[in-house]
Amino acid sequence: MTSPADAPPGVRRAAVVGIGLIGGSIGLALRSRGWHVTGSDIDPARGERALELGAVHALGEDPDAEITFVATPVGAIPDAAKTALARGGIVTDVGGVKAPVVAAVDDPLFVGGHPMAGSEQDGIEGADGGLFEGATWVLTPTLDTDSEAYTHVRSVIRSLGADIVALPPDRHDALVAVVSHVPHLAAATLMGLAADEAREHPAVLRLVAGGFRDMTRIAAGQPGIWLDICTQNSEAILDVLDRLGADLAAMRERVATGDLDALRASLERSRHARVNLPSRAERAGGLAEVRVPVPDRPGVLAEVTTLLAELDVNIEDLEIAHSTEGPRGVLVMVVAPDACEQVRMALSERGFRPSACRLV
Amino acid sequence: MTSPADAPPGVRRAAVVGIGLIGGSIGLALRSRGWHVTGSDIDPARGERALELGAVHALGEDPDAEITFVATPVGAIPDAAKTALARGGIVTDVGGVKAPVVAAVDDPLFVGGHPMAGSEQDGIEGADGGLFEGATWVLTPTLDTDSEAYTHVRSVIRSLGADIVALPPDRHDALVAVVSHVPHLAAATLMGLAADEAREHPAVLRLVAGGFRDMTRIAAGQPGIWLDICTQNSEAILDVLDRLGADLAAMRERVATGDLDALRASLERSRHARVNLPSRAERAGGLAEVRVPVPDRPGVLAEVTTLLAELDVNIEDLEIAHSTEGPRGVLVMVVAPDACEQVRMALSERGFRPSACRLV
Repeated sequence: MTSPADAPPGVRRAAVVGIGLIGGSIGLALRSRGWHVTGSDIDPARGERALELGAVHALGEDPDAEITFVATPVGAIPDAAKTALARGGIVTDVGGVKAPVVAAVDDPLFVGGHPMAGSEQDGIEGADGGLFEGATWVLTPTLDTDSEAYTHVRSVIRSLGADIVALPPDRHDALVAVVSHVPHLAAATLMGLAADEAREHPAVLRLVAGGFRDMTRIAAGQPGIWLDICTQNSEAILDVLDRLGADLAAMRERVATGDLDALRASLERSRHARVNLPSRAERAGGLAEVRVPVPDRPGVLAEVTTLLAELDVNIEDLEIAHSTEGPRGVLVMVVAPDACEQVRMALSERGFRPSACRLV
Repeated sequence: MTSPADAPPGVRRAAVVGIGLIGGSIGLALRSRGWHVTGSDIDPARGERALELGAVHALGEDPDAEITFVATPVGAIPDAAKTALARGGIVTDVGGVKAPVVAAVDDPLFVGGHPMAGSEQDGIEGADGGLFEGATWVLTPTLDTDSEAYTHVRSVIRSLGADIVALPPDRHDALVAVVSHVPHLAAATLMGLAADEAREHPAVLRLVAGGFRDMTRIAAGQPGIWLDICTQNSEAILDVLDRLGADLAAMRERVATGDLDALRASLERSRHARVNLPSRAERAGGLAEVRVPVPDRPGVLAEVTTLLAELDVNIEDLEIAHSTEGPRGVLVMVVAPDACEQVRMALSERGFRPSACRLV
């Protein structure tokens, strides 16, 4: 076992707090890119296992880590993040709920994050350095976030192969309730319903085909994190559960009344939406760059990145080129060519003065 | 193009009515096993395409077909089945709803069927001769079904690689509402909810991870067959939709009240059920045989097969050995060794006189 102090000079240093599936995967991904990684976990056995698996170089604290990833359960993130901030460096987290975490930490050098990646295999044993390749990783800068801290976190995460989406924390929470939290509860409910049926009619489980297996796969996950999520994001989850209940009642009405036109229209619309779900593969092709002079203050970055998220434009790359002449910088954003003009116009409407789009 | 009359003497002959994904796959599977297959379809272009793809040898009718598979949409099955029965031979179908079909056809030589297999690719272009390998294929004999017709259909379908589950038609319909029909409507509803959200917040679609993709995959299918299913099986579907609504309301209550113990118990139960979903791979190992003397009359077979389905015991093989001395036969059933004693006892309780179990 090496200690943090054993890192050769010049090597970039990171810390990971909480070494489960995500923390372990971050450790592996960083190590494979040449970083020195120090890990810690509330469970000493898990820490030792992470060391054995090579997810971290050393256990303990590294006061010289330039970035700390907090990968504990959601409820434990604020304390862990504050401890890490007190030690120095920039801190980010991977919690599935963002607004309460970001509000509780409340520090310009903390950038909330949420990698949309997982595995059926929970825990450190499922850790995989390639887990984030092509995955979406949400960052939730606020008006108070330090812009350099944000770009720093952003560039490290980009280097792990993830696509970044910037969203306000509460928007993140509302959206993941729609595409993750409530679907999970619905999958568990459908599986529970089939299990009820199986008590009386065991044959039902032999009729399970691929579609049902696909639909309920996520219900096989450990309940632990969902208790945290349902506690921390209960408001958004209840709202979406109510909408789901109303939409299912509308579907029931179409079946009950035999309104085949309405049923067809509803199924056709869902089919269209499902077939057109964006995939990373669709984002091939060249890129375009637009430059925007901005005052170098917190908040501007969040305003711009949130605007692009609203437009559903992904920021493929981003840097802040500081002016040598005062507190202004130039924000350089790289986006898909067909989206660039839309971005330019939206920025103009908000009072920014963007450059022309340029293919890069 | 060959005509049905071109089949060499001695070659077994089958007909397929309706040559889409399932009909085309049956054609390919039968051909690869040496059958001569004649197909027909209400759409001449689809018929020609099936011929080009080799799913059938010939288009038209084959009065000498020993078995006809009706693979039309559910609403069209009764008429197509009656036409085929009038031509002669045994007839089966592949409709996703069974009670109304079986009641409408009402013929001892018709055996209702439902292969639990599909593909994301609809239509004849997705046809695949291996589609049924390892798939569950439900057959729904009734008290009026001719037992030889049943064993005949059963043996042909077994030869395509499918596992047969025998169920009464209305039980089939109630069970597929739980594991197929309502999950499909729920997937479409979840996808629709995300599409609604995307109109206001396009970024939501970038947060879609693998779990949501898995859950909504079946919503990408063509709505057509679902209109038929929702019409023909509306009663069972409405019943299950009501149970799903009540179960989701209970889940909502756990979240709203922060009852983490109840939430954990519910998620844990679903997890356990999902992890323990039976898969074909689990059914390895030897087999055991039990013999049951039975009067050779319709109804006995349905009684026995339904009993085994209730016990959740799969009949791996089945034949009726006719007595040479009168209207009695011996039903030979092959089941998993660990299930054989249970089957024997259940049969005894119903007044049958089964043999001892014997490993085969």
